[in-house]
Amino acid sequence: MSSETYTTALAQTAAEFDAALVGLLANQDNDVPRIWDAMRYAALAGGKRLRPFLVLISSDVCGGSRASALRVAAAVEMMHTYSLVHDDLPAMDDDELRRGLPTLHRQFDEATAILAGDALLTLAFEVLADPATHADGQIRAELVLGLARAGGARGMAGGQMLDLEAENRAVANANEVIRLESMKTGALFAWSCEAGAVVAGAGQAERAKLRAFGAEFGMAFQITDDILDETGDASEVGKAVGKDSERGKATLVSLRGLKGARDAALEHAQRAVENLDFFGEKADLLRAAATQLIDRRV
Amino acid sequence: MSSETYTTALAQTAAEFDAALVGLLANQDNDVPRIWDAMRYAALAGGKRLRPFLVLISSDVCGGSRASALRVAAAVEMMHTYSLVHDDLPAMDDDELRRGLPTLHRQFDEATAILAGDALLTLAFEVLADPATHADGQIRAELVLGLARAGGARGMAGGQMLDLEAENRAVANANEVIRLESMKTGALFAWSCEAGAVVAGAGQAERAKLRAFGAEFGMAFQITDDILDETGDASEVGKAVGKDSERGKATLVSLRGLKGARDAALEHAQRAVENLDFFGEKADLLRAAATQLIDRRV
Repeated sequence: MSSETYTTALAQTAAEFDAALVGLLANQDNDVPRIWDAMRYAALAGGKRLRPFLVLISSDVCGGSRASALRVAAAVEMMHTYSLVHDDLPAMDDDELRRGLPTLHRQFDEATAILAGDALLTLAFEVLADPATHADGQIRAELVLGLARAGGARGMAGGQMLDLEAENRAVANANEVIRLESMKTGALFAWSCEAGAVVAGAGQAERAKLRAFGAEFGMAFQITDDILDETGDASEVGKAVGKDSERGKATLVSLRGLKGARDAALEHAQRAVENLDFFGEKADLLRAAATQLIDRRV
Repeated sequence: MSSETYTTALAQTAAEFDAALVGLLANQDNDVPRIWDAMRYAALAGGKRLRPFLVLISSDVCGGSRASALRVAAAVEMMHTYSLVHDDLPAMDDDELRRGLPTLHRQFDEATAILAGDALLTLAFEVLADPATHADGQIRAELVLGLARAGGARGMAGGQMLDLEAENRAVANANEVIRLESMKTGALFAWSCEAGAVVAGAGQAERAKLRAFGAEFGMAFQITDDILDETGDASEVGKAVGKDSERGKATLVSLRGLKGARDAALEHAQRAVENLDFFGEKADLLRAAATQLIDRRV
């Protein structure tokens, strides 16, 4: 698949996804406007919508319904967005810029950012558990369980805790960094792909393959992100850069150098793609996503 | 029912509940210790466990299984606990004392308090969605949906947003205060009772009655809480008092005086109890809870 075909598919999917997300974040009668304004500010600020793309294409690969997959994709993106909002807070990473705009607590205030993050996280589960997502309650419950595991103390939130702890320690080794990044980033990518299979009603084999793809994809993504933090500039990346080394935070870049990190990212992307053999050409867009990750970002 | 019988039942149920909660918050291999320590610090600090009590007794009233109801009660209490942790943060209510102990961000730090709150919120949904809670996925999904609605932007989180906004405005009327308190406190109490019916597989009539009981109970609870903020002392209440008037925050106490607020609490408690006729004596512990609320707290 050409890089252009992939880029077009990604952009079209993002536009379709954004329209669905706007609907899920619309005010209703009697709503408190400020918290919804803040939720929309954070969630509708653009972004490549890579996790939603992975949900949607994974569901396609397994023959799932687009309407159902869009709701699952929205839940995953709400989870991701809330984590950005909270990670940006002064008590956490203290970031002023996100996707080229002031972070939520700079645009509104800290209390609103905390609450809007909480509400986005909660809404993610509300969306999944709603019968509109799937007629089968068993599948809805499984979607909730998987997202909660990916996002919670044994996944993303625990990874962020490790990340903050790592700032206060002089030494970290590559194994610790890999564990941290697989919790902080890998778990939600792995779940994005698996969730597409779950909502499509796919079997265990499909689920396992897509999950493995997503986990490796997530690691490749995070390492390229760390490389960009070292080599990119803020206007291009849309957020502050150079923060990892400024904070003495260990990444594969600091531990293995740029070349070592590039090699590791490439290796994860290759391992990701190996899991797609099972699906034949139906998975070409997922293959292209892994390839593009390396070509464009590193 | 004598006040002693009720007090004993409440304490016994709290002990049984705490044992279940300890199990759900136990470290597993490879966990990040700090986030779990913080989650346990917040969740296992005692408290009357009123919401869990309401879940458990509502389930009993509908003939539900205790093991299932304990998990639902744990999820509700995790939701409640996370809201306390985040509300106590410096950017929100800036409280130093909670249940007689330093608040989580004082004992650990702000970042840990934000993350541990996020993780407790997420774990609440994980617990509900787990097949261990109920064999029927439809019921698990319904439990998730109800908790998310009670806790999110149209419930508790939205109520807290309104509460913060109210501090910045000179005027508030009783209708606004009632709306705020029914979102901030009433929604989770209403859901606690309804969830007991849901996990017991009860019909719509039982659900509606228990929900209505819980909503009125929650309003009575919140008003008595506001009265205690005005009349209690910190050592007795276990948290700082007098903060509402210090902040110029309108409550029924400031709008209608102590007597007016007491009358309103009594009225809500009476309306709560009217919903229990349907269940006969099986609901005596719920009746006692509403009566005790007024006798002990106001």
